[in-house]
Amino acid sequence: MENFTFYSPTFFAFGKDTENEAGEYVKRFGGTKVLIHYGGKSAKSSGLLDRVEASLTKEGIPFVSLGGVKPNPRSGLVYEGIELCKKEGVDFVLAVGGGSVIDSSKAIAAGVLYDGDFWDFYSGKPIEEALPVGTILTIAAAGSEGSPDSVITKEEGMFKRGASGNAIRPRFSILNPALTQTLPAYQSAAGITDIMAHLYERYLTNTKEVEVTDRLIEALLLTMKHEGPRVIADPNNYEARANIMWAGMMAHNNSCGVGRSQDWNSHNIEHEFSALYDCAHGAGLAVTMPAVFKYVMKHDVMRFAKVAVRVWGCQMDFDHPEVTALEGIEAFRSFLISIGMPKNFEELGTKEEDIPKLVEVLCRGDGRDGNIYGFVKLNEEDCANIYRMML
Amino acid sequence: MENFTFYSPTFFAFGKDTENEAGEYVKRFGGTKVLIHYGGKSAKSSGLLDRVEASLTKEGIPFVSLGGVKPNPRSGLVYEGIELCKKEGVDFVLAVGGGSVIDSSKAIAAGVLYDGDFWDFYSGKPIEEALPVGTILTIAAAGSEGSPDSVITKEEGMFKRGASGNAIRPRFSILNPALTQTLPAYQSAAGITDIMAHLYERYLTNTKEVEVTDRLIEALLLTMKHEGPRVIADPNNYEARANIMWAGMMAHNNSCGVGRSQDWNSHNIEHEFSALYDCAHGAGLAVTMPAVFKYVMKHDVMRFAKVAVRVWGCQMDFDHPEVTALEGIEAFRSFLISIGMPKNFEELGTKEEDIPKLVEVLCRGDGRDGNIYGFVKLNEEDCANIYRMML
Repeated sequence: MENFTFYSPTFFAFGKDTENEAGEYVKRFGGTKVLIHYGGKSAKSSGLLDRVEASLTKEGIPFVSLGGVKPNPRSGLVYEGIELCKKEGVDFVLAVGGGSVIDSSKAIAAGVLYDGDFWDFYSGKPIEEALPVGTILTIAAAGSEGSPDSVITKEEGMFKRGASGNAIRPRFSILNPALTQTLPAYQSAAGITDIMAHLYERYLTNTKEVEVTDRLIEALLLTMKHEGPRVIADPNNYEARANIMWAGMMAHNNSCGVGRSQDWNSHNIEHEFSALYDCAHGAGLAVTMPAVFKYVMKHDVMRFAKVAVRVWGCQMDFDHPEVTALEGIEAFRSFLISIGMPKNFEELGTKEEDIPKLVEVLCRGDGRDGNIYGFVKLNEEDCANIYRMML
Repeated sequence: MENFTFYSPTFFAFGKDTENEAGEYVKRFGGTKVLIHYGGKSAKSSGLLDRVEASLTKEGIPFVSLGGVKPNPRSGLVYEGIELCKKEGVDFVLAVGGGSVIDSSKAIAAGVLYDGDFWDFYSGKPIEEALPVGTILTIAAAGSEGSPDSVITKEEGMFKRGASGNAIRPRFSILNPALTQTLPAYQSAAGITDIMAHLYERYLTNTKEVEVTDRLIEALLLTMKHEGPRVIADPNNYEARANIMWAGMMAHNNSCGVGRSQDWNSHNIEHEFSALYDCAHGAGLAVTMPAVFKYVMKHDVMRFAKVAVRVWGCQMDFDHPEVTALEGIEAFRSFLISIGMPKNFEELGTKEEDIPKLVEVLCRGDGRDGNIYGFVKLNEEDCANIYRMML
């Protein structure tokens, strides 16, 4: 195991009706003037925003609101949010929504206290201070409710890039599984896929003898395998939603990913899809992961055999472990298709002729050196091969 | 799943040589005058205390020291520590040792800021403030490095009781697996048993459909099953020590125990052993748990069958699940004996004629109403039966 530090100081309030405690938590964590940041009409029509506003008002906390966050959140709205916060003297950003809303809120929170262009943080500058952020989660997927990470897409060039820092880690996150019950099946499935990607990409490691985190990751994958189809079959299944919601947080607060190298190449490769085609991030990952895994599995067949046996219930082929490894990847792919995810480029809405452009942005965009680094280093030819495997 | 809150803001520094960063972390978390609290001679003779002192001195932080914490830490030394801190103007308590040292440090930290008798906290009074506590862990067992809990034994009456509060949760914990390599096999095995008890007692729940935490607990039990014997066979196995050390923290910071009822009756029943006979807590648990589990398994046979199949690799007997359930308990007991734990009262050093006294203190001591409450409510007769099963 490698040396590491782990710090996850977010306060989680989990369960039914917990959104009504928002005002209390904003107060506890020092907010006196709030920006409520949200997405589209569902937060309004469901009455959720009304309940959150009532909770703030009950505590005597004034607020301003900014809606309109879209999936794959854009820099334009972040600039707008920063201006609004400065003008209104906001000292706390409250995200009401899924990962996109939370990521946009984190970007605003960092940008308000920074004199330069907030995009600097998404080009490698460490985030050292930010307004405190709280979240009320409505989609179990990104894990942003318990992570120090944020991903934003810059309109010019359509670069989708991440930033990270403890300063943007939520001070509190309210997780009410009932709020995710209204989510359409496709979005639920995309969320399930994203959570499983966070687990797989932590599982793919070059670090040896990390049994405890291997086992924890497998535990969460097994949970998703069990609960995912139950949510697709019955969107109102509170218990299944609850299990997925906690798994989604645990999958990405890094308690299961410490002390080991990790692989974020599936995420890197997918980011170009969702930036260029604006597809659901999880749907892009569903097509990307099996291709990447098949491409890299020869570098550690036993690791892929391990997850095949322990999570997908494959029988170990002791003479041909690569058969078991491949069987596990196929089982994962079949699972994703069974919950409604696309199985190839075409279903995702992308085209073969776009591959050179995808590879260019992926490997050369935003100052990259022609490679992406992870479990295995991948160059432009590798990435083109992987994109072609998705056809 | 039940509603819950989860909050684990401890900063963890994990890995080789991390004890040399102690001064830096004390400074970061606001300490300007430190009490170094420790156990016996091993902390001195190993050079660990010297390294910790050097680290504090490097940061210009003065300190006083108080050693002498014994397993099943006593209230007497806590009173002494409180007096010393008040006299010396200490504002940070640094525990260097295992769970006993950490628990004693937490008690001191709470007592310094309290005008009354610190034992009030161990009789049910909530802990609302305390000096900040940091830890340098030398035994993977109690999980006190990441928990808000402390257990102290009061000399008069030999009551062993717990207190809890976020104020005594460590601000930072330094976990260097190499520091546990010098631990004798018996103590290592007792630590392994204690960690597995923290997992089993979270697993025993009346709450339905908590797959995510079931799976996480199973993951950590599987880790202990794999790594435990490796540490007993080779005490210098750093990797096995590291896996156990992280599992030990995760087992007790409650990330795997949220949203469900839990059962602490094995701990309750064992506490009377270690208070009266001063045996190793883990050794007492090794004898207690199988007896308790056999006594209560009829209340949820499928739960015991589940852990038998998933952790102990038992084949499910679909016609007679109670057979599988019992097989799992026996497999756990055999495992504990195989790593060197006692198998009955006699090996533990306790005697049949003490049973009435044990039951009396357990069920009536310190204001209890004749029952202990957990997965199943147990009255005095139940407890006497369970103690007799351990003969």
